[in-house]
Amino acid sequence: MDDGTTGPDLDRLARELETLGTPGRLVRDPAELAPYMRDASRAVPDGAPLALCLATTTAEVSAALAWAHASRVPVSVRGAGTGVSGGALSYDGGLILSLERMDRILEIDAENRLAVVEPGVVTAELDRACRAHGLFFPPDPASARSCTVGGNVATNAGGLRCVAHGVTSDAVAALEVVLADGRVLRTGARTRKNVVGYDLTRLFVGSEGTLGVVTEVTVRLHPVPPGTPRTFRASFDRLEDAGNAVTAIVNGPARPEVLELMDALSVEIIESFRPSGLVVPGGAMLVGQTVGEHAEAHARAIAESCAAHGAVDTEVSDSDALLEARRLSNPALNARGLKLSCDVGVPVAALARMLRGVEEISRRRGVRVSTVAHAGDGNLHSTVELPEGADGSARAEAVLDEVTRLALSLDGTISGEHGIGAVKLHELPWQLDAVSRDVQRAIRSALDPRGILSPGRAV
Amino acid sequence: MDDGTTGPDLDRLARELETLGTPGRLVRDPAELAPYMRDASRAVPDGAPLALCLATTTAEVSAALAWAHASRVPVSVRGAGTGVSGGALSYDGGLILSLERMDRILEIDAENRLAVVEPGVVTAELDRACRAHGLFFPPDPASARSCTVGGNVATNAGGLRCVAHGVTSDAVAALEVVLADGRVLRTGARTRKNVVGYDLTRLFVGSEGTLGVVTEVTVRLHPVPPGTPRTFRASFDRLEDAGNAVTAIVNGPARPEVLELMDALSVEIIESFRPSGLVVPGGAMLVGQTVGEHAEAHARAIAESCAAHGAVDTEVSDSDALLEARRLSNPALNARGLKLSCDVGVPVAALARMLRGVEEISRRRGVRVSTVAHAGDGNLHSTVELPEGADGSARAEAVLDEVTRLALSLDGTISGEHGIGAVKLHELPWQLDAVSRDVQRAIRSALDPRGILSPGRAV
Ligand SMILES: Cc1cc2nc3c(=O)[nH]c(=O)nc-3n(C[C@H](O)[C@H](O)[C@H](O)COP(=O)(O)OP(=O)(O)OC[C@H]3O[C@@H](n4cnc5c(N)ncnc54)[C@H](O)[C@@H]3O)c2cc1C
Ligand SMILES: Cc1cc2nc3c(=O)[nH]c(=O)nc-3n(C[C@H](O)[C@H](O)[C@H](O)COP(=O)(O)OP(=O)(O)OC[C@H]3O[C@@H](n4cnc5c(N)ncnc54)[C@H](O)[C@@H]3O)c2cc1C
Repeated sequence: MDDGTTGPDLDRLARELETLGTPGRLVRDPAELAPYMRDASRAVPDGAPLALCLATTTAEVSAALAWAHASRVPVSVRGAGTGVSGGALSYDGGLILSLERMDRILEIDAENRLAVVEPGVVTAELDRACRAHGLFFPPDPASARSCTVGGNVATNAGGLRCVAHGVTSDAVAALEVVLADGRVLRTGARTRKNVVGYDLTRLFVGSEGTLGVVTEVTVRLHPVPPGTPRTFRASFDRLEDAGNAVTAIVNGPARPEVLELMDALSVEIIESFRPSGLVVPGGAMLVGQTVGEHAEAHARAIAESCAAHGAVDTEVSDSDALLEARRLSNPALNARGLKLSCDVGVPVAALARMLRGVEEISRRRGVRVSTVAHAGDGNLHSTVELPEGADGSARAEAVLDEVTRLALSLDGTISGEHGIGAVKLHELPWQLDAVSRDVQRAIRSALDPRGILSPGRAV
Repeated sequence: MDDGTTGPDLDRLARELETLGTPGRLVRDPAELAPYMRDASRAVPDGAPLALCLATTTAEVSAALAWAHASRVPVSVRGAGTGVSGGALSYDGGLILSLERMDRILEIDAENRLAVVEPGVVTAELDRACRAHGLFFPPDPASARSCTVGGNVATNAGGLRCVAHGVTSDAVAALEVVLADGRVLRTGARTRKNVVGYDLTRLFVGSEGTLGVVTEVTVRLHPVPPGTPRTFRASFDRLEDAGNAVTAIVNGPARPEVLELMDALSVEIIESFRPSGLVVPGGAMLVGQTVGEHAEAHARAIAESCAAHGAVDTEVSDSDALLEARRLSNPALNARGLKLSCDVGVPVAALARMLRGVEEISRRRGVRVSTVAHAGDGNLHSTVELPEGADGSARAEAVLDEVTRLALSLDGTISGEHGIGAVKLHELPWQLDAVSRDVQRAIRSALDPRGILSPGRAV
């Protein structure tokens, strides 16, 4: 509150934005701001936000944050709202800061394989623009056609190609960030190597809107591999065999660009959402892609390795249909109202044990669980079907908790790519001890002493 | 000082270390601790340190830091002391904390391509141990046979293979770090993806002993590529042509594992240090290595690309001699007492302009400058020959400053891999603005409020 007695002075913010003379808007109409209150997770906002700022420039973001800082108004930050951990949920009496209108690709520097973009650029749009230069943007979450680069940076998003090209963190060279008090910070450099000061770029990547608002991103691009990609499929009767095949593949000579797993129930759910002729496997299906001059030979080598590890049926093809099916898993689950899912990770050699464990938990607790995985990275999304009955929700949550603890017992993580947000905060102490949480909090308060940025989330 | 009146109570620390019952030692003999006062840079320590702690366990490091924290004693941290930016210099009245005796390889997990090591393990020893499992440790500074993994982590060291495999930061999965007050922090995870909390691992990598003392490192290993590596050489009459060839190579289809540049004066210096028959080029020489099944074809393609960009002479070979010559550049320069060097970086497409600029500065100022470069990464080490006369040192420094400012004007960095330490602190404001330095300092004080860790260095 500005002076401790009256409420925050929204008119002042509106006037300040107007003074800047740029097209940014402050929206107060509850109906117009309603779609900006939630993300794609199961979390629901409590109360009503004050306003939505549709920013179009860094100066506007800076004005909005300086105002929120002075007025101690909590700020939720959002790109496209495809996040699945409740990170972009609005606050009661808070300001929603949307970056979706800062959506320009400012530069593609092909010789240095860099692009400079505003945060609201849709991930797949950036990728498309780069392809005109023979380059691509590596992070490709299954949501690439709607999520934003700023959201990818804030969540350190993964995706299908990570097994070959790394996660968002590996693809960011420099950032412009507006700090909680409105100051503008530039991090990183356009060079491939830079050891000047702490690695603030990587500190902001994955910080889920708690340390600052990303207003410009310099990303690293990769050259499009020559030749035509090949896709492969291998179906297994036993989940565990599929897990062991993955370990063999990632340690073998033929490296896939994509290596995904869908268990039987997932394939069933995807096929009933949009049939593409996939045969539901007994245990699980691996699908993936190889690229480069030797794509065909590598796809065949991987299929053979799968056969040697118990695959009952394999296929190599040049159509994208297999991966498209995998990309549909989220919408297919959503269509059934299935949103109780996790994002655990294990070291890849523990994948078979993890898959067997999930199966065992599901059986023992009598709750159906479907799993898709960025298998090559050991990153699993298990989704729980809500059991019937009054205690259904509690039983479902208990299954997710048990799956998460299993991953941790295998030296794993509670989140591989989705982040903590509002939804997984209670799990944080399972992975991070008191010293670690203390350090996280100390860094957060150093950058946002008034705690206005995404308070109560992420760390 | 413990109570503000008497000096720090070293006996108390000695007793505490003894109580732990482990072999760590506290050395007070000035003669024995003298070799631990400097690193490989031109910087000289002022005053005399109190003592040297030769730690052997995390508990000892923790005891030493808790004591220093309570006593407000400045601590310098060191691995092998091969650093070239004065980061490990001792303090007057300070404690030297050496990790060289924590030199065990604790685990090599081949299936997950991870190793867990103590910080004092020598980089080349780790690499050798991994090769027994068909794996290797990517960072390979030219000092690999003497520097430590902890030092590599603290400086985010680069090396020859970075162009293909990234820098130390890309090779670290998790850390154990003792904080300034003695608390033990664990960061990261053994998974390939992990987005739980801020990326503290990457915050500590490159923090040059200012945020905590690294006591355990979990590193990511890569599989040794099949086949025999090939080396290549291309000699150019014009420096600039060599620069343009590099840009073409890194954007071409045949990717080198190593791509280094030595200008004419460097080759001359190296040849006179240890002759290997290298012919001094008119302008510069590119040397490098290709690996994998297609190493031979790729080396030839690179040699051809060099010829197309003006190389007057090219060579493909299966001997390591070319790279060995490059690795000798530092000892060769040292043998001549040449320690006035820089570590600037530019986006790789600016390499030709940078090389031309250095030549021009050298000519205009009448000071001889030799340059070697991790060319594929756009990272240059230019070394200045001290001109004769009373103003020689000032003239030499002025040349380095001008080279550094040139790199910055080309969107570059003042340090690609050596770090800031004590030597480059005055350059920091050239690259980082006030907001950035403020944020760096805020993070530092959040973690080390009493400022005992490497005070006055790095940020
Ligand atoms: C169908 C579907 C498939 C998906 N598949 C994947 C997948 O394969 N891999 C994966 O990693 N994720 C996946 N996701 C999750 C989600 O798409 C990613 O987390 C994505 O990065 C979010 O981007 P967004 O623009 O929608 O961000 P939002 O949802 O708007 O925000 C996400 C978080 O980032 C913060 N944020 C957003 N923009 C900024 C900014 N400019 N500055 C600071 N903070 C900001 C928000 O505060 C919030 O904490 C999927 C989601 C869906 C619905
Ligand atoms: C001949 C020669 C060639 C070189 N070539 C390269 C090269 O190609 N690439 C490159 O990047 N560098 C190179 N260097 C520089 C140097 O070898 C690296 O910086 C190396 O990483 C330093 O390791 P060290 O163990 O010697 O660390 P030290 O010199 O002992 O310390 C370096 C810095 O790290 C800190 N530190 C050390 N250990 C720890 C720890 N456990 N916890 C916290 N902080 C710690 C110190 O405080 C100091 O700030 C070269 C140096 C020489 C002499």
